[in-house]
Amino acid sequence: MSQADPGGGPDRLVAALRRSHVLHGFDDAEVATVAGIAMLVEIDAGDTVVEQGSPGDALYLIIEGDAEVVRDGRAAAKLSAGDFFGEMAMFNRAERVAAVRALERLQLVAIDDGRLQALMLRQDPAATKLVQQLGTLTIERMQDTDAQLQARLAPQDPALAVDLAQHQQLHRQLLAGWALTYHAVGKPGKIGVNSTKPSATAADLSVAYSPGVAQPCLAIRDDPEAAYAYTSKGHLVGVISNGSAVLGLGNIGALASKPVMEGKAVLFKRFADVDAFDLEVDEGDPAAFVDTVVRIAPTFGGINLEDIAAPDCFWIEQECQRRLDIPVMHDDQHGTAIIVGAGLLNALELVGKRVEDVRVVFSGAGAAGFASALHLLALGVAPGNLILTDIDGVVHRGRVLPDYLRPLAVDTSLRTLADAIVDADVFVGVSAAGVLTPAMLQSMARDPIVFALANPVPEIDPGLAGQTRSDVLVATGRSDHANQVNNVLAFPYVFRGALDVRATAIDEHMKRAATTAIANLARQPVDADAGFDPAGLSYGPGYLIPKPFDRRLLPEVATAVAAAAMESGLARQPVELSAYRDQLTGAPRL
Amino acid sequence: MSQADPGGGPDRLVAALRRSHVLHGFDDAEVATVAGIAMLVEIDAGDTVVEQGSPGDALYLIIEGDAEVVRDGRAAAKLSAGDFFGEMAMFNRAERVAAVRALERLQLVAIDDGRLQALMLRQDPAATKLVQQLGTLTIERMQDTDAQLQARLAPQDPALAVDLAQHQQLHRQLLAGWALTYHAVGKPGKIGVNSTKPSATAADLSVAYSPGVAQPCLAIRDDPEAAYAYTSKGHLVGVISNGSAVLGLGNIGALASKPVMEGKAVLFKRFADVDAFDLEVDEGDPAAFVDTVVRIAPTFGGINLEDIAAPDCFWIEQECQRRLDIPVMHDDQHGTAIIVGAGLLNALELVGKRVEDVRVVFSGAGAAGFASALHLLALGVAPGNLILTDIDGVVHRGRVLPDYLRPLAVDTSLRTLADAIVDADVFVGVSAAGVLTPAMLQSMARDPIVFALANPVPEIDPGLAGQTRSDVLVATGRSDHANQVNNVLAFPYVFRGALDVRATAIDEHMKRAATTAIANLARQPVDADAGFDPAGLSYGPGYLIPKPFDRRLLPEVATAVAAAAMESGLARQPVELSAYRDQLTGAPRL
Repeated sequence: MSQADPGGGPDRLVAALRRSHVLHGFDDAEVATVAGIAMLVEIDAGDTVVEQGSPGDALYLIIEGDAEVVRDGRAAAKLSAGDFFGEMAMFNRAERVAAVRALERLQLVAIDDGRLQALMLRQDPAATKLVQQLGTLTIERMQDTDAQLQARLAPQDPALAVDLAQHQQLHRQLLAGWALTYHAVGKPGKIGVNSTKPSATAADLSVAYSPGVAQPCLAIRDDPEAAYAYTSKGHLVGVISNGSAVLGLGNIGALASKPVMEGKAVLFKRFADVDAFDLEVDEGDPAAFVDTVVRIAPTFGGINLEDIAAPDCFWIEQECQRRLDIPVMHDDQHGTAIIVGAGLLNALELVGKRVEDVRVVFSGAGAAGFASALHLLALGVAPGNLILTDIDGVVHRGRVLPDYLRPLAVDTSLRTLADAIVDADVFVGVSAAGVLTPAMLQSMARDPIVFALANPVPEIDPGLAGQTRSDVLVATGRSDHANQVNNVLAFPYVFRGALDVRATAIDEHMKRAATTAIANLARQPVDADAGFDPAGLSYGPGYLIPKPFDRRLLPEVATAVAAAAMESGLARQPVELSAYRDQLTGAPRL
Repeated sequence: MSQADPGGGPDRLVAALRRSHVLHGFDDAEVATVAGIAMLVEIDAGDTVVEQGSPGDALYLIIEGDAEVVRDGRAAAKLSAGDFFGEMAMFNRAERVAAVRALERLQLVAIDDGRLQALMLRQDPAATKLVQQLGTLTIERMQDTDAQLQARLAPQDPALAVDLAQHQQLHRQLLAGWALTYHAVGKPGKIGVNSTKPSATAADLSVAYSPGVAQPCLAIRDDPEAAYAYTSKGHLVGVISNGSAVLGLGNIGALASKPVMEGKAVLFKRFADVDAFDLEVDEGDPAAFVDTVVRIAPTFGGINLEDIAAPDCFWIEQECQRRLDIPVMHDDQHGTAIIVGAGLLNALELVGKRVEDVRVVFSGAGAAGFASALHLLALGVAPGNLILTDIDGVVHRGRVLPDYLRPLAVDTSLRTLADAIVDADVFVGVSAAGVLTPAMLQSMARDPIVFALANPVPEIDPGLAGQTRSDVLVATGRSDHANQVNNVLAFPYVFRGALDVRATAIDEHMKRAATTAIANLARQPVDADAGFDPAGLSYGPGYLIPKPFDRRLLPEVATAVAAAAMESGLARQPVELSAYRDQLTGAPRL
């Protein structure tokens, strides 16, 4: 027998809500708001709480007792006090994907989905917080289950493989649903603009605005450098796109690229405390796009170009940097190049090969491929040892090529990736799923190094690569495999270092410095300074590249970039490097 | 006898700091930081703490005892426990402007200026907070003294007039010094960009950025309106200038205008919780400027054009609005026009004149003058009753005129302001100091209404106007006189209302609605809902226009603008007005 609102009144409901860690950190008013759309429910052992396939009209927090999730008649998971279920309906509004059955007497809090949605529409803070908490916990749970299933997959259990596939499909659906809700709940979007100075009183506003504000205006009129002292310019990065090559989605236009650009701003803030603001520029013509960026540039201390299609992106970046005296970087090119470079330096060190000796073959000659190739040459790869391939095969001197590719064309009789890869030491894929076949991998030299960066499906599956050759080292673009090549390891810190010395540009020397700093960090023990749970990480084939949440990245990479800018003579405001590193570490020596 | 560090050690110093309200709200660590650069000082009665003209190397907090400020041998003010002195050196680094003498035994905390400056350079949070607190308190104290001296000035005491002039000069110097420090202390500038959604964990970032972020991108690609649901667009206003007419400073260029534009962003946030971001556009050509604004417009829900010189500003605004489907407003034009309109409606009501009957004369036909003139016509002033004058006299049909002025030219034999003002009911000055002479004011009709908006020195001093005619009603642009015409009463709320209904433009109807709402608010009693100390304000000649800190402005003006947008058919997302007003009032009816 089930019983809704089994007595005890609102106090009992509030007490139950207080016991759920879903409401961790909620204040009394917030708990009261949730209580207003919830009720206590008790379920007898053996009874079903929700049926698979039924419409979801509530979500449930388990206060006491165990339950099991039953999917297609099979027990899929066990739930206990502190868990919750039914939240999936909230994110993608589908029917229940599984049943839940009480294993013993359950005490639940049922939260009415319709009333929760109504509160969300009004941007109610408690509802916003509840939904955000549920979303974060749901995705974390899915990630944990992914990891557990993958860990158990090694023994090649076909039933487990089915479970994993099923789970991953659910994960994708849920992530897609939650991604939309995440963006929409509360104030739409992901960024806001805040006042960083006191603005409460008339006295404050008399200096923030007229009449006092005339003073910094005049100071800047008389000396443009004063803008770094009196405005936010020096810590502002413009994240600028025309939406012509967004993620893997192609040319979806400026407006549709805004969620990505806001996301980039979030990453700048999260990892390097850089204030980044996105601008979506509705302009396809490269010259007009550059004019636009140059005109608005006084606003910013640096420009992060983003998701601009090749080949326009090359000229656009060069031209913006040529015309501006602030750092400009197209992250799709150099962010990727820096991480590939760092990973390669470490992989070569581990297999005992010298960078000037190795043969490198690229699949993909777009923004990331081209820039990574140039960067590897800058790191010491011999020009004759580097072969680019694209959808038309080897980039050789006999081909009709776009201007930007000509300098990288080689004089060779090789025509296909399969030709070029024979005896190569390194494969860098920034192209498409499955391009590197097991036969190609077999043909590579000893201890082959494979960067399979196509997303979401790499050029070769890491598991398949390992089965094909036990001596392979693999990196991908995915967070659920070892050695993720993730731009977020570079761009926040490259800009932070460049901004902090008021660099006039970002040059090759600064990018190489970032590469070396990132490579060196992976060689350090992952200790308490890293600020995240290392889970047994240590430098080796499974850990060539630092993890995004390693908080040592900020002091290490930004300091290296600042030092390089000073060496290059690009720093308008040199810093004392040791004090600067300490300041970024958050532990200044006094 | 004076004694530095009279014993008791650091605990006594900390206890003394804790007693000073300058350190109100400081936590233990912050107090400890201040203690590290401070020491206790005791001064005997009659001794001098600082000499006038000596270099300032410390600032002093009075913990116990009374002191007097002595300027040029005259006692200028009394200080007691809780007061501080010597802070002026910190803001403009001049020599001491006055001596301070102990009236009884004083206990002081002396804070070393050099060491404080060193901490500020490192952006130390405690030093930043201390300096901000001192700056705010200093300006508030100057404002209070201004007000007291002005209140005592009425009896025409020549000595008081000297005091006031001296004080005002000091006030200007101090404001100028503090304005620079305010902008520079801590993180430079006034704005930052923050993440509004959870971004702590990998789970959060998997929806904020790749892979989850692809979902809102695709949703917007398929339906551009979805940008309002999934991005910050709908609550973002671009504050955009080319720096061609900044405050009264003229064409100081894009970069030098940035402090003003950041200040505008601060006001948007402070008064209407609108996220505004400044863009300084280095482009003098109107067509290229418009192209730039149009290209970056997908980023924003609205565009506030700012400080763009006439006559370009007129075409630029029209053309931006014509090419964009988001609200565009040049605030220098319409912000001023709306407040002048509101003040005029109330002034006319008070003197019992009808808007359609009154004769209005403008001095100044730039951005604010031209737009205000058009707005008064829209409010009912008869075209034949409105005369513009500028530096060349009356704007009449016989003159060679710029295109924008032709529609406002009148067929008249009047040639000068002195000619036109005879028997006029209303004077609106947006021109220069002292343009309206007592003789001209004398020649106006009964109960003349004078908007003397030149800043900082009005077209006629309000005191002089009152001495000239007892029946005059005066408004100025200054915060230290009654009836301040301040754009901040309009623009935050006009945009907030327009954004909240996703208006495609700002039309005359919406501006008229804002005008009426602001006028009506001044007619309401200033009660607790206003959220500020009313100091005896009530509707009348001394209170024609609401005060900037009146928190009823947000619900009243934004709701009126939203309603007007709906009436005009410009609202893409109509709202239920009563619920909307409640939401803005912060007290939703549940």
